[in-house]
Amino acid sequence: MRTILLATTALLLTAAAPKPLTPPDLIAAAPASAWRAIPADDLLVLDLKSGTRIVIQLAPAFAPVHVANIRALARSRWWDGAAIYRVQDNYVAQWGHNDERKMPPGVVARPPAEYDRAVRGLAITPFPYRDAYAPAAGFAGGWPVAVRGARANLTHCYATVGVGRDLAPDTGTGGELYSIISGAPRALDRNIAIVGRVISGIEAMSSLPRGPAPMGFYKDRSSDTPIATTRLASDIPPAERPSFEVMDTASPTFARLVRLRANRHDAFYERPAGGVDLCNAPVPVRAKP
Amino acid sequence: MRTILLATTALLLTAAAPKPLTPPDLIAAAPASAWRAIPADDLLVLDLKSGTRIVIQLAPAFAPVHVANIRALARSRWWDGAAIYRVQDNYVAQWGHNDERKMPPGVVARPPAEYDRAVRGLAITPFPYRDAYAPAAGFAGGWPVAVRGARANLTHCYATVGVGRDLAPDTGTGGELYSIISGAPRALDRNIAIVGRVISGIEAMSSLPRGPAPMGFYKDRSSDTPIATTRLASDIPPAERPSFEVMDTASPTFARLVRLRANRHDAFYERPAGGVDLCNAPVPVRAKP
Repeated sequence: MRTILLATTALLLTAAAPKPLTPPDLIAAAPASAWRAIPADDLLVLDLKSGTRIVIQLAPAFAPVHVANIRALARSRWWDGAAIYRVQDNYVAQWGHNDERKMPPGVVARPPAEYDRAVRGLAITPFPYRDAYAPAAGFAGGWPVAVRGARANLTHCYATVGVGRDLAPDTGTGGELYSIISGAPRALDRNIAIVGRVISGIEAMSSLPRGPAPMGFYKDRSSDTPIATTRLASDIPPAERPSFEVMDTASPTFARLVRLRANRHDAFYERPAGGVDLCNAPVPVRAKP
Repeated sequence: MRTILLATTALLLTAAAPKPLTPPDLIAAAPASAWRAIPADDLLVLDLKSGTRIVIQLAPAFAPVHVANIRALARSRWWDGAAIYRVQDNYVAQWGHNDERKMPPGVVARPPAEYDRAVRGLAITPFPYRDAYAPAAGFAGGWPVAVRGARANLTHCYATVGVGRDLAPDTGTGGELYSIISGAPRALDRNIAIVGRVISGIEAMSSLPRGPAPMGFYKDRSSDTPIATTRLASDIPPAERPSFEVMDTASPTFARLVRLRANRHDAFYERPAGGVDLCNAPVPVRAKP
């Protein structure tokens, strides 16, 4: 009976019931044409001292100068010896060196405020539901965006990666980064440079002990989570480098997935919401088959 | 310089800048008249074997039969020896016994589906911003609610506590509970009984290792987080019992707080959102001064 109960309990809060169609079913059945390879230059690979690997997809179309800085920092191994030094519950995990060490050549000391960008040049697939923060939203090149007139911005969703900064006009260099480990703190949108998202290993950040000092800083460095190396996948030998694909947000499969997330009819759901939050319609990413 | 940088870095992503007014400033300055004591009967106190205490505020106005069950289970010490046995990243932590042990007398085996309730009888303060899931939202007696015509339901926000159940028509007894440790999975609204929220110690659940099995179940019980005792505060000697206050969601202070969360002007914020998600406007709770 125990096994049966576990099996039935396993249906609790899940999207794994076999039929009707669930989001995981739809993603698993997506045709190859619905997937796009992520360039190795857009994959930032953090290997923790523990051996755990965290992979971040960079967003050069939205924060080109910050992303160029991050690539330069990775190539110069600037982050060697860096650590996760701040974990604030229901908010962020933050990493880097948290000191004033010198930046290597090629890093722009004061990047522009790449907090949003022109809609022109982006192919935006409209998000069909209400957004609580912007008059319109959508997806562009695999990324969720909020749209205000002629401007679009990446949104702070779970696993979004942004650039720590001091007060304006400072925009941060990219040396100190944070990842969202909570509900979507969308008030940060258009106030900070979003440079990507964690696509593998976010749980290695979200499950860390919260820091006891104000804003989740650890009281001493011995509490930090050390990062062994931070490299671009393109700097890792092809045989060893991770490789990922992202779903084409302009594909019929993705449009269907968003509608399905707003209208769950699988076993557990008796009353579909008829809508979904932009951040609760994450863009599927998978390790390359 | 390190200290200075820490001090300035401390402004990163924070709401703690001294002026202009921040949400914490406003909460700290709230008059006594803006606070309501939480009845000791509405406080469920989980003491983990580790010594960590987690306190849950129950919501009898929304799920009376399930809450009555939970009180009966606590009074009979049914949860002694229970554990947190499931932690799914960006979703839930779930606890209880996860077996089929007998319920004590007074526990309703098949409670009604207390997934929403009549608006009649609730004093609802309207939420002034868009909700992504319901046509309207608000706050009633200290709780966020989504409103659809004559019906209102509690919403799945960070730290919301709900009742694990099997497939409908089962609604769960209250013996297996979960807490949201992620962004707001609002698709669960009106599909499951919400019985309260964690008001102290949520980080003891959100920072637990994620379970490796499907849906975050741990592979063996040795990975569980044991719970020593689960009691109502009213069953703890007055001198030792925890005591909390919740902000009156009908108070001018709370109305001002919601507007302030939607329009951050403090140091870090250059561009206020002009809106806020219902779950990003949490109702303040404090230990009784």
